[in-house]
Amino acid sequence: MSAGRLIGILGGMGPLACADLMRKIILETPAARDQDHVPMVVWNVPQVPDRQQALASSGPSPLPAMREGIAQLNHAGATRIAIACNTAHHWHAQLQADSAAPIFHIARLTLAALQRDGIDEAVGLIGTHGTIAARLYQDLLEPAGIPCLVSDAQETDRLFVPGCYAIKRGQLKEGGMLLERAAHALMARGAKRLVLACTEVPVGLEHIGSAVLPLCIDPTLELARACIAHWNDQGPM
Amino acid sequence: MSAGRLIGILGGMGPLACADLMRKIILETPAARDQDHVPMVVWNVPQVPDRQQALASSGPSPLPAMREGIAQLNHAGATRIAIACNTAHHWHAQLQADSAAPIFHIARLTLAALQRDGIDEAVGLIGTHGTIAARLYQDLLEPAGIPCLVSDAQETDRLFVPGCYAIKRGQLKEGGMLLERAAHALMARGAKRLVLACTEVPVGLEHIGSAVLPLCIDPTLELARACIAHWNDQGPM
Repeated sequence: MSAGRLIGILGGMGPLACADLMRKIILETPAARDQDHVPMVVWNVPQVPDRQQALASSGPSPLPAMREGIAQLNHAGATRIAIACNTAHHWHAQLQADSAAPIFHIARLTLAALQRDGIDEAVGLIGTHGTIAARLYQDLLEPAGIPCLVSDAQETDRLFVPGCYAIKRGQLKEGGMLLERAAHALMARGAKRLVLACTEVPVGLEHIGSAVLPLCIDPTLELARACIAHWNDQGPM
Repeated sequence: MSAGRLIGILGGMGPLACADLMRKIILETPAARDQDHVPMVVWNVPQVPDRQQALASSGPSPLPAMREGIAQLNHAGATRIAIACNTAHHWHAQLQADSAAPIFHIARLTLAALQRDGIDEAVGLIGTHGTIAARLYQDLLEPAGIPCLVSDAQETDRLFVPGCYAIKRGQLKEGGMLLERAAHALMARGAKRLVLACTEVPVGLEHIGSAVLPLCIDPTLELARACIAHWNDQGPM
């Protein structure tokens, strides 16, 4: 525990995923009382242009709104920043260039977790078209010897996208069940483990208590652990 | 939806109660997509001296730390502030005096909810010794014709306090079961409804899916609704 350390969270993408990250930070922290918990300042402002549409060149860039959030977190004194959205990491380098506080990278933390756990089986990536097309995870995992499987176009359109947007509407059961079907489709094609590469996915699967959860690596949880490690003064500088 | 409106949340007391308020705001908001959700900035910094000890004159005042949080939220542009802790409302007037943004009052919102729902039966208050001794709820509810019952010293010491602190340690099942016993004790003495007058209480009772929940008025939920109403441009000025 170090005086002055403060986690900044850029949320809003979506807002429930932000609350999920906070909850995971809190429940993963060994704490006997309030004062032992990780201090955090959170910019959970969802009025950010749709990341999917921007990556498909059919909508405005979310970068200015995300930059404002990063600036707010730095101004409030954040010493590390976590972004509670995988797709937003497409703009990680640009956001980091503007931020005095180092910004965690959710996919790099997930690779470290896979290596820590000795996982080298084929993993299925459950994420947005933007995350998959940008190869946010594949370009890290495949060179490390971890084969990646991704949803096909039909699974993305019929299972992932409606599942993800159901979570954003607060329809957690409907969303969880669709996302579980996306998980099963990847497993049917050979995925032995699943990386929940969109922060809405663990929210949905946990809501329905999905039987696939023991096979999942949850990047939100790895982000939470990195936040706790920073607060415990053991995080990477 | 109004440009420029922004909810500020003073959390950390405890941090899980703050995440619970955020989740309730999000799930209560009719939203088709991320951008329809309530924008919020959150100061969830739990390094605030213990409110109970301060009220018992056995520890330092939490007021300076809470003032810093309120200043941070104002600086970030909050147009209304919610405090995710009942006991902290003991200092509501002092915090409001320093805050340009109006600060919601959790007990006044709860009274309004009781009146909205036509409740005039005896309510049991499940709250901290500080909240009960300061008569935060009784002085509002009793003049409005709503009789209040409170835990006795033994129930407070053996059920409420260990239940509340179990939640703060992240032991939600243990905490929920103790708090449910506190609820049953109040009902055995004549309480027909229960006011969850400490923000850890709904976290615990919801975790165990307590059978008393349909009888409960949840001040955290009323606070969430006030935040949504402000964002919808219908909140009190």
